[in-house]
Amino acid sequence: MSASVGTSAVAPARVLGLLARDLPPDRLSTDPRTLAAHCTDRSGTRPDGLPLAVVHARRVQDVGTVLRHAHSLGVPVVPRGAGTGLSGGASAGEGSLVLDLSGMDRVLELDAEDQLAVVEAGVVTADLDRAAGAHGLRYAPDPASAAWSTIGGNIATNAGGLRCAKYGVTRDSVLGLEAVLADGTVVRTGRRTVKGVTGYDLTALLTGSEGTLAVITSATLRLRPVPVASATLAAWFASFEAAARASYAIARAGVVPALAELLDGPVLEAVDPALRARGEALLVVQCDGAGAGVEAAAVAEVLAPLATAVERTEDPAEAEALLAARRQALPALERLGRPLIEDIAVPRSRLAEAAREIRAISARHGVPVFTLAHAADGNLHPIVVVDPALDRLPDAAWEAAGEIFALALRLGGTLTGEHGVGVLKRQWVAEELGPAAYGLHRRVKEALDPLGILNPGKGF
Amino acid sequence: MSASVGTSAVAPARVLGLLARDLPPDRLSTDPRTLAAHCTDRSGTRPDGLPLAVVHARRVQDVGTVLRHAHSLGVPVVPRGAGTGLSGGASAGEGSLVLDLSGMDRVLELDAEDQLAVVEAGVVTADLDRAAGAHGLRYAPDPASAAWSTIGGNIATNAGGLRCAKYGVTRDSVLGLEAVLADGTVVRTGRRTVKGVTGYDLTALLTGSEGTLAVITSATLRLRPVPVASATLAAWFASFEAAARASYAIARAGVVPALAELLDGPVLEAVDPALRARGEALLVVQCDGAGAGVEAAAVAEVLAPLATAVERTEDPAEAEALLAARRQALPALERLGRPLIEDIAVPRSRLAEAAREIRAISARHGVPVFTLAHAADGNLHPIVVVDPALDRLPDAAWEAAGEIFALALRLGGTLTGEHGVGVLKRQWVAEELGPAAYGLHRRVKEALDPLGILNPGKGF
Repeated sequence: MSASVGTSAVAPARVLGLLARDLPPDRLSTDPRTLAAHCTDRSGTRPDGLPLAVVHARRVQDVGTVLRHAHSLGVPVVPRGAGTGLSGGASAGEGSLVLDLSGMDRVLELDAEDQLAVVEAGVVTADLDRAAGAHGLRYAPDPASAAWSTIGGNIATNAGGLRCAKYGVTRDSVLGLEAVLADGTVVRTGRRTVKGVTGYDLTALLTGSEGTLAVITSATLRLRPVPVASATLAAWFASFEAAARASYAIARAGVVPALAELLDGPVLEAVDPALRARGEALLVVQCDGAGAGVEAAAVAEVLAPLATAVERTEDPAEAEALLAARRQALPALERLGRPLIEDIAVPRSRLAEAAREIRAISARHGVPVFTLAHAADGNLHPIVVVDPALDRLPDAAWEAAGEIFALALRLGGTLTGEHGVGVLKRQWVAEELGPAAYGLHRRVKEALDPLGILNPGKGF
Repeated sequence: MSASVGTSAVAPARVLGLLARDLPPDRLSTDPRTLAAHCTDRSGTRPDGLPLAVVHARRVQDVGTVLRHAHSLGVPVVPRGAGTGLSGGASAGEGSLVLDLSGMDRVLELDAEDQLAVVEAGVVTADLDRAAGAHGLRYAPDPASAAWSTIGGNIATNAGGLRCAKYGVTRDSVLGLEAVLADGTVVRTGRRTVKGVTGYDLTALLTGSEGTLAVITSATLRLRPVPVASATLAAWFASFEAAARASYAIARAGVVPALAELLDGPVLEAVDPALRARGEALLVVQCDGAGAGVEAAAVAEVLAPLATAVERTEDPAEAEALLAARRQALPALERLGRPLIEDIAVPRSRLAEAAREIRAISARHGVPVFTLAHAADGNLHPIVVVDPALDRLPDAAWEAAGEIFALALRLGGTLTGEHGVGVLKRQWVAEELGPAAYGLHRRVKEALDPLGILNPGKGF
C-alpha cells in the first residue's frame, strides 16, 4: 500500500504550506538537524533520505490537523515518542512527516481511589510511575527504557519489561485510549472501568499496532498498589540450560514471581569478569506481595539442588545489589560496541533448547551472541554486538539473526516478545502469521487506513 | 447491514440442499423441536419465527462448510455454545442457520509445563478447570455459568466471573484462537507464548465480538497454578452503601482480593430471611496465594470499624459456607420468578452512588430490584424478577432498565461489564461508544464480514 502514498510531486510543498498555515507557529520544523534527529530510533536503522518536516504536537488538535492534511494529500506520517524503539518503528524516510508526540506530556488525571491515570502519549513512563508512587500505587509495566520512553510508544509497541512475569504487558494496563484516525477523526476506545464488554476491543487492537492503525494521543491506564513486601534471590548455575531448567521448576512449584531474569556467561563477563567466575549463568528472581517471603523460600528450595549457590534477601538495597548485574548488562554491552538486541519468545519450557540452539547458530556463523532472558515469559534477548564503525551489519550477523527467528517459530514461539516488528523483522512476519491471518491483517489495515499513510512499511 | 442478508427467496432451500450434500449425515437438523430448542438463550429473548436449520458441528471443517455456503448465498449464521447467554447473543430468527458448537468438545492438549490448554470451542468451562486441576493448575475465569457454559461462548462474550477481581476476565486467559471467517477461511491468531507482539492483537479483537466477526472453533488458553492457600471473610453491614464504601477501603489498603462479592438486603431475604436479619448487606471477600492469611487480616482490620460483624476462616469448607449465600442467590431469585439480570459496571469508587440511584429508580417505577455486585470490579447486577406467566416485559421494567443504563454511562461506566450486548442492549450501544468509535466498529465489521452474515443484529 505504501506505493500509493506520496506519489504526487506537489504533495510535499502543499502539505508543508497547509501545516504552516494551520498549526500554531512553534509546531513545525524543517531544519535539517531537527529532521536528522527525528528520523530514526535506537534500532540503528538509517532511512533513505530525510523526512519533509517534524511536527512537534502539543495538543490532540495538532495531530488532527497533521493527519487531515496528510490524508487529503496522501503523505505518509510517522508517529514517534522518545525514539527509544529497537525495531525501526519510528524510522522516517524521504517524503514523510514525523509526528513527534513527546511534547504531549501532561498527566491529565491521577485517580488514587479508582487506581487509574489519564495521561497524554508523551508522558515518560517512569514519570507516571513516580507520580503514582505518591499515592502508594505504581504503573506496573517497566520496559528497560522506562526512564526515557513514552507511554504512547510503550502502547504502540505493547512493551513488556521485567515485571510482566506477574503483572502482564502494557496491554494489560491500558483501559482506554484516545487516538486520531488516518483521516484526522478523534476516537475514544475503552473505558474507566476495570471490566466492560460493550463493542469490540479496539483498545487492544490499537495497542501494539506500531502506529499503523491510528495515532495514540492519550490513554487511561490502570495503576496497582505498590506491593507491601518483596524478596529477592540470586542463583548461580553451571550453564544457561541448568538455569533455564531451574526456572521451569519455579513454575512447577506454583510460584508466579514478579520477575525472573536470566543472564548467560558472556553477559556476566561483559559486566564484570569476577561475576563469570561465580558461574556460567545467573538467575535473579523476585517475589512480591504479602506472600513474598513464603514464595521466595519455596523458590530457594526448588533452586537449591539445581544451582551452585543461592543468595536471598528481603532488604530492598540488597535486592538492588542482586539485580545490579541485570541492570548493568546493556550499558556493559554498549561499551563493547553497538548491541543489536533480538527479542524472540518461546513457550517457556523451550527456553533451554532455544539457548542451546542459539549458541550453535553463534558458533556456526562466527558471531558472538550474548543472551539475556525474561525466563518466566520464555522471552530471550540474544544480542549481537557489532563494530560501531561499520556502515552496515555484517552478512554473518544477518544470517545468524534469520536463523534465530526461524528457531523461534520452529519452537512454537514468536519473532518478537516485546519490541515490535518495526522495519527490522518485517520480512519474517508473513511466516509467523500464515497466509489467512496475514490477509486478515491487511483487511483491518485497509479498513482503518485505506490510503496507507500511517507509518507505511512498518509492522507487517 | 442485516437488510442485505437472506433477501433471496430461493436462498433457504439452496443452502439446505448444499449443506445436506456437503456435511456428514448426522450434522444437519430441521426438526421443529430442535429448532425451537436452539433459537434462543437464557435471556428470555424470543426471536421472530424459527431458524432454517441447526448444524451440530463436530469439526472445524463443518464450520467452514456452513460459512462457505451461507456466505455465497447471503444466509445469516448464528453461532452458539451452550445457550447460557443472558443478552440474547444466540437468538436466531427466521431464515437463519444456527451453528451449534457444543459438540466440538475435545480438550486437544493440556500442557502442564507451559501451563496452557488447547481446547475446542464446545468444551464446558468447568470441565477444563477440572482437567487442569489434575495438574495443580486451574482455568482462572469462573463465570457463574461455568458448569454449563462453553469456552467458545465465554470467549465470544469475554465473560467475567468472581475471580476476575484478581485474575482478569476471559480475554486475559486467551493466548490464541482458531476461528473461521465469514467466507469459510480458517484463521489462527495469537500464539502459545505468554508474550508476543507480532502483528495486530486479533485474538483480543475476536474475544468479546459476540460471533459478529468470526466463529471461534478452538482456543489456546492460559492456565494458572492453584493458589497454595486462601482465606475468606464475610462482613455484615447496615446498608449496601456502607458495604460498598468498605470495599473501597480494601483497595485503599493495597489488597487485591481474589473475589469481593456484595449482596443487598432483598437478595439476602430471597436466599433466607434469617440472613437479612443479620444485616442489610453482606460482603464476602476471599484472598488467595501465599499471602492469603496476611491479606485477609489486613482486610479484616479495615472492615472492622465499618461492618456490624466480620467472620473469617482459612478452612475451605467454612469458606464455602460463607460463600453459600452468593452461590444460592440466583437459584433463590429464580424461585420468585424470571430474573432479568442487568450487568452495568462503574468506576469502583462509584459503587455506593450507583446502588443508591438504582434504589431510587426502583422506587420511582415500582419495580423491585435485587442487587449483587462484584465489588472489586465496580460490576453491578441489578436484577428485576418478573412473573414468568407474562408474555412480555412490563413497560415499567423496561423504563427502569433504560434509566439504569443511563446511570451507568453518567457515572463513567458501561452498559455491560461481562454479559455482552446481544440484542437486549443494542439500542444503548451508540450512546456509550460515541459516533467516532461507532463508525470505527462499522468499518471493522465490514472488513471482516462484508455481507453481514455473522450474527446480524447483535452486539452493535
